[in-house]
Amino acid sequence: MSRAVVAAMTAYTLELREAEIKLNQNESPYDWPRVLKEQVLARAVERPWNIYPDFEASLLRGALAAAYHLVPENIHVGNGSNELLAATIGAFVGPGTPVIFPRPTFTLYEKLVTIAGGLPVPIEFEPDSGLLPLDDVLTAVAQHENAVVIVCSPNNPTGGVLPEGGLEALLDSGAMVLFDRAYGDFEQCHSARSAESPATCEGDSEPTSRLGMTLPSLHPRLITFSTFSKAWGLAALRVGWVASTVENCREIRKVKLPYSLNAISEIAATVALENRALRDANVARIVNERERVVAAMRAMPRMAVFPTKANFVTFRPERSAKEIFEALFARGILVRDVSAYPRLANCLRISIGTPEQNDRMLTALAEMMNDEHSHER
Amino acid sequence: MSRAVVAAMTAYTLELREAEIKLNQNESPYDWPRVLKEQVLARAVERPWNIYPDFEASLLRGALAAAYHLVPENIHVGNGSNELLAATIGAFVGPGTPVIFPRPTFTLYEKLVTIAGGLPVPIEFEPDSGLLPLDDVLTAVAQHENAVVIVCSPNNPTGGVLPEGGLEALLDSGAMVLFDRAYGDFEQCHSARSAESPATCEGDSEPTSRLGMTLPSLHPRLITFSTFSKAWGLAALRVGWVASTVENCREIRKVKLPYSLNAISEIAATVALENRALRDANVARIVNERERVVAAMRAMPRMAVFPTKANFVTFRPERSAKEIFEALFARGILVRDVSAYPRLANCLRISIGTPEQNDRMLTALAEMMNDEHSHER
Repeated sequence: MSRAVVAAMTAYTLELREAEIKLNQNESPYDWPRVLKEQVLARAVERPWNIYPDFEASLLRGALAAAYHLVPENIHVGNGSNELLAATIGAFVGPGTPVIFPRPTFTLYEKLVTIAGGLPVPIEFEPDSGLLPLDDVLTAVAQHENAVVIVCSPNNPTGGVLPEGGLEALLDSGAMVLFDRAYGDFEQCHSARSAESPATCEGDSEPTSRLGMTLPSLHPRLITFSTFSKAWGLAALRVGWVASTVENCREIRKVKLPYSLNAISEIAATVALENRALRDANVARIVNERERVVAAMRAMPRMAVFPTKANFVTFRPERSAKEIFEALFARGILVRDVSAYPRLANCLRISIGTPEQNDRMLTALAEMMNDEHSHER
Repeated sequence: MSRAVVAAMTAYTLELREAEIKLNQNESPYDWPRVLKEQVLARAVERPWNIYPDFEASLLRGALAAAYHLVPENIHVGNGSNELLAATIGAFVGPGTPVIFPRPTFTLYEKLVTIAGGLPVPIEFEPDSGLLPLDDVLTAVAQHENAVVIVCSPNNPTGGVLPEGGLEALLDSGAMVLFDRAYGDFEQCHSARSAESPATCEGDSEPTSRLGMTLPSLHPRLITFSTFSKAWGLAALRVGWVASTVENCREIRKVKLPYSLNAISEIAATVALENRALRDANVARIVNERERVVAAMRAMPRMAVFPTKANFVTFRPERSAKEIFEALFARGILVRDVSAYPRLANCLRISIGTPEQNDRMLTALAEMMNDEHSHER
C-alpha cells in the first residue's frame, strides 16, 4: 500500500498526441545545428561509458560559474531543474512546513510539497494583469512562521511576472525563496525594439540583462533554478542547475542524489555555454515572435490574451477551448489545454514556434475566432 | 535553515583521486566498443535535441518488457536506479514508516528513508558468512507493523546474498520488499565451470539464469531495482529501471519526476539490449575473474576474504587497511576503504577489473601481505 497522501494523488500525465507543429511543451522550436551536435558526440565517444560521471560535475559547474560570475560551490547541476527543485524541497520542507506559492503555476511544486509532508499554501490569482500576486504572498508569509515561498517568474502557465522589486520584497519578508527562472531568459525586452527605444523596456535598464544571462544576486534566503531545456534548446538532454550560497548548496547536496547528471548531457551543456550566440539568437527570435503573436492574437475578436514574458502565450477564447484545441489539432497544430488549472477555465496555452509555425497557428486561430457561426461557449 | 534531519546529515562524499587502475566504484572494467557507441550517437544526432524525451519512454520500456517477459506498465525507467529508489521510497515510506534493512549496506537507503521521515531499522550483521541476516530481518518485520524491507542482494559493500528462498520468505512475511539487484547479474555461476560441472552451481539450476537476465516473478509486495551501470557497462549514462505490478508502478509514477531519462541515455540502453552478447561476455569475464581473484586472495596470509557474488570483493586484512589502501594507490591502483561502515572496521573493497588489472592488484597485495616486517594492525 502506498502512503495515503500518494494514494490520493493523481499522476502527472500528458495527453500523448503527435502533430506536425508541436506547440504544447514550451520547447524551443529550433533544434541544435548538426555541427554542434557532432561536437558533443565527438567528445562523448572518447569518454569511457563504463565509468561514472565526475562526482563533482566539475566541467559544467566550472563553466556555469565562469559564465555567471559565481564559484562552483554556488552551483549544483542535475537531471533537469525538476530534480534540483525536488532535492531543495527535500532539504528545506519538512512535515508541516508552510510553502506559499501563487496558483495557477507549475503543478510539480504542489506535488513535491505534498510528498515532503509540507503544507501547501496556494495564493490564487487572476492571470489577466500579467503580474503575480506579490502582496497576497507577502501577507501569507506574515501569517506563517518559517515559510518557504516558491515563485516561477515568468510564470508557467500564465506568462505573468513578479512586479518590479518583487523578488527583493520576498527576500525582505524573511521567507526562504525558491525562484524558478525556467523562463527567465525570455523576460528581456524585444531586443531590436529596446535598442531603438529603451523606454519601452520597463525595469530592464542594464544592457547585459537583455541577454538574459544574469541571475539575481546571491542571498542567504534565495535559491534560483535554471534550465537548459528552454532558451538553450536542450530539452532532450535534461540539464538543470541551481544557484545559491555555499551554505545552502551544502544542504542541498545532502539530499541530492549523486551522479544525477549523465556524462553526455554534461558535455552538451558545456558545449552550449561555449556557443552562447546560438542561445542569444534563439531568445531574440522567440521574443520577437512572441510580441508578434501576442499582437496578432489581441487583434482577434472574442478572446482575452494574458500578458506574457515567457516563450508561450495563454488566452481565454469566448468559445469552447476544447473545440479550438481540436480544430487546431485537425490542422496539424498541437497546443496545450490548460483548462483544468484553477482560474484558467477554458484557457489554452500555445508555445511560440518558428515564424512559419506561428503563421499557420495564427491563420487557423483567426479563422476560428472570426467565424460568426461558431458556437458561443 | 534546512530541516533539522537534513542539517544533522553528512553529505555523501567520495574521496576524489585519480589512478591508472580504477577499482573503487564497482564499474565494469570494459568500455563499450567504439562501433556500438557510434551506433548510439548516430541515432542521437537524428533526434531533435530541443524536444523533450518521450513522456512514456516507450522505446526502452518496450525493449525491457520484451527482454524480461513483462508489459511496459510493469516498468519505469529513470536516471539510474537511485532515482527510482528515491521515488519508490517517496511513494511507500511516510513519516514513521518502519524500514528494515541489513547493515552494512548501500548508505543511500538509510539517507532516503531519513529524508522521507521514515524510521530506519538497521539489522546489523557480520559479513563473514556471505549471507544476509534473513532471520533477524523476519523477526524485525514481525515486530513492526506495515514494515518496508530494503534488501540488496548481492549486497554492497559486503558481497553476500540472501539465503536460498530468502526473497520468498520476505514476501511471505507481509512486508513490502524493495529488492535492489544492482549486482544481481553477477550472482550467476562461473559460466564455463557450470557448463562442465553444474553441481558446483548451487541454487542456480535454470540455464537462463546463468545469463543473469532473469528477474524474480512479479508479486504485489515486490519492487525490483536494476541498473545498466554495472553488468551492462553504462555507468556514464545513468540508466536504471524498476519492475513491479501495474498497481505499484502506478503509485511510483505519481512520485517519480517526469522526463527523468534523457533521450540519448534511452537510446544507449536500448542499443545495449540489442547487443546482449556484449553484456553476457562482460559478466562471464568478470565472474571468472572474481573467482580467480577471491581464490588468490584466500591463498594470502593474514586476511579474511568475505564470500562474494558481486563484481567486487571485500576483505579484512590483519594489518592496517589504510596502509594497504595507500600502498596500492602508490602503485596506481585505487580501491575503496569501507572501514567507516558498521561491522567493516579495517576493511577494503576492490572492484573486479580486467585480468591485467587484477594481476597487478594481486601482485601488489600479496607483496604487502607476505611482508613479514609489515606492522601488525
